[in-house]
Amino acid sequence: MKHPENDARYRGLTVNKGIDQPPIINPYSTKRSPRKQYSVEEYVQGILAGNNVILSQAVTLIESLRPDHQETAHEIIERCLPYAGRSVRWGITGVPGAGKSTSIEAFGMELIRQGRKLAVLAIDPSSERSKGSILGDKTRMEALSVEPKAFVRPSPTGGSLGGVARKTRESIVLCEAAGFDTIFVETVGVGQSETAVHSMVDFFLLIQIAGAGDELQGIKRGIMEMSDGIVINKADGNNIDRANLAAAQYRSALKLFPMPDSGVRPQVLCYSAQQLSGVAEVIEMVNKHIELFKTNGSFEQRRTQQSIYWMRQSIDESLRNHFYHKPEMAAMLREKEQEVLSNKKTPFSAARELLDFYYNS
Amino acid sequence: MKHPENDARYRGLTVNKGIDQPPIINPYSTKRSPRKQYSVEEYVQGILAGNNVILSQAVTLIESLRPDHQETAHEIIERCLPYAGRSVRWGITGVPGAGKSTSIEAFGMELIRQGRKLAVLAIDPSSERSKGSILGDKTRMEALSVEPKAFVRPSPTGGSLGGVARKTRESIVLCEAAGFDTIFVETVGVGQSETAVHSMVDFFLLIQIAGAGDELQGIKRGIMEMSDGIVINKADGNNIDRANLAAAQYRSALKLFPMPDSGVRPQVLCYSAQQLSGVAEVIEMVNKHIELFKTNGSFEQRRTQQSIYWMRQSIDESLRNHFYHKPEMAAMLREKEQEVLSNKKTPFSAARELLDFYYNS
Repeated sequence: MKHPENDARYRGLTVNKGIDQPPIINPYSTKRSPRKQYSVEEYVQGILAGNNVILSQAVTLIESLRPDHQETAHEIIERCLPYAGRSVRWGITGVPGAGKSTSIEAFGMELIRQGRKLAVLAIDPSSERSKGSILGDKTRMEALSVEPKAFVRPSPTGGSLGGVARKTRESIVLCEAAGFDTIFVETVGVGQSETAVHSMVDFFLLIQIAGAGDELQGIKRGIMEMSDGIVINKADGNNIDRANLAAAQYRSALKLFPMPDSGVRPQVLCYSAQQLSGVAEVIEMVNKHIELFKTNGSFEQRRTQQSIYWMRQSIDESLRNHFYHKPEMAAMLREKEQEVLSNKKTPFSAARELLDFYYNS
Repeated sequence: MKHPENDARYRGLTVNKGIDQPPIINPYSTKRSPRKQYSVEEYVQGILAGNNVILSQAVTLIESLRPDHQETAHEIIERCLPYAGRSVRWGITGVPGAGKSTSIEAFGMELIRQGRKLAVLAIDPSSERSKGSILGDKTRMEALSVEPKAFVRPSPTGGSLGGVARKTRESIVLCEAAGFDTIFVETVGVGQSETAVHSMVDFFLLIQIAGAGDELQGIKRGIMEMSDGIVINKADGNNIDRANLAAAQYRSALKLFPMPDSGVRPQVLCYSAQQLSGVAEVIEMVNKHIELFKTNGSFEQRRTQQSIYWMRQSIDESLRNHFYHKPEMAAMLREKEQEVLSNKKTPFSAARELLDFYYNS
């Protein structure tokens, strides 16, 4: 499997080359401070007025590590919360090569044509390692990048998956308050990030391609069962028959799966993001499912569960960090781990000794 | 879906009726103290000598809530650890109705015929609610129950899933030290317990039945992708064609799945536990896979990961318990949860406030 970092397409894209954009919404500015210091009130008013420049700077505050920025971001989010929640949130995943960027561009432009306003966010845990963002890919979203009714933002860089996920989820709040009625959260589909994305969206869309052999080796187990819909891209030219065959295989595979919590069976559709065929049908399918989710109550239920999930997740992560990053613990952690691996102690008694030490030190 | 507690088969089975067993290994004695107080040394020697009565009493100590019992259990386990680890551990799951007990009886008796020694344990989180054990089912394992080369033990009752899982995993250590070379860990397949079982076995076997419609509604999502092998039970009489069809469907579905971490594709077989047909083939399939896992290194790797997983799991659970069960937290937890659900606070700021309170109180 080709890892994104080793993929030439993702290399050297941390500076903006090519597209002529207003410099202030340069998507690669996440590491810099906002140009101008607005007050919390100015930020909130700007966001609610749909000012993308101010929205972008507020997201930069969310992503900043500076405590004063975080404090300001926190206040802005709290003030925006009452205006948030009224969008449809899509999660979009698929292995590299499935054509995610082209698909997002195709779905996105069609949604805008239908009168929607779209924000595209991403969760890319690999950025932690590469210190670059996978949505360098963004340069390929040529139409969306310059579309005033769209807001495209690369994945926050650095930090734990939990941290990145928190930033993205908080950015959703601001985007919704700014009037975006559709949010795409993209993820690369090979790591741990799918659960995080799945836990912040209303519809989880898996993009596949025909010839489901080696291409799939990179995708994480469990993703298929997590999906609310599966779409086969590149159903064009000579590839149409293979795409239809793949769709049929996925359809019969899905029959073996238990019914999702939503109570609605996932559908499988073919399309071509390149040829722009079948794109409106994918959107219609998602819309129809969202309607069904709203009718049977699973939409509200899912959002409620997600909120509680994130609160608990955030607590758990903090408790773990406190334990594992306490300087006194490091040596003892290594020692107990060795004792477990050499069968001198059970995992449970090693844990007990570590906890005794933790609570008493 | 019919929940086990509402299933007549599981009712009223908490006292031993029917089978004539030596009273001392009465499987329903988990709540009582051991009859005789052995020393740690006597327990260890008894277990290593393969004395099932002493093994059974040691497991009772593991399951006891009394601190002095736990302390003794702890010492016994530590002393037995060097003699443990040399078995093949199967996880067995399937929805109620798939014929798990009959299958365990069939697989087990065949293994014993082949010269193996078998311990059957279980993880049943529902016992927390019902205060009864699902391996009341055990009365159906008529042959295994009276077989001297088998040790059948119902799920520990009460406590969290983490607690039940810990007890089962510690019991595995004692069973292995007592010379059982095959361990079955059964789970009911509708709850959260599959991940726990998956994390303590070398081979995870999913039992299904033909007509994969409504029967499957009760099984948890993700279980199929977790399986190392899928077997279709009740392939007998008029049902053979349907079973073969189901097997073919599972086979093509599995092709769409990514390769498991073990590097070996799961197989799908048909059998009939009732008619005892295809049973040896299932065992051969598991044996062959275990060989492949050992050859490609995934067997060792999985066990190592499992040990570290349980240590961390145990730490995480303890940290969470400490947080959520601190008496001062209760009111504030309810309050913050309400603020999140009414969109007054983000999950993250609610978590932050709770944590501030926790660390400073």
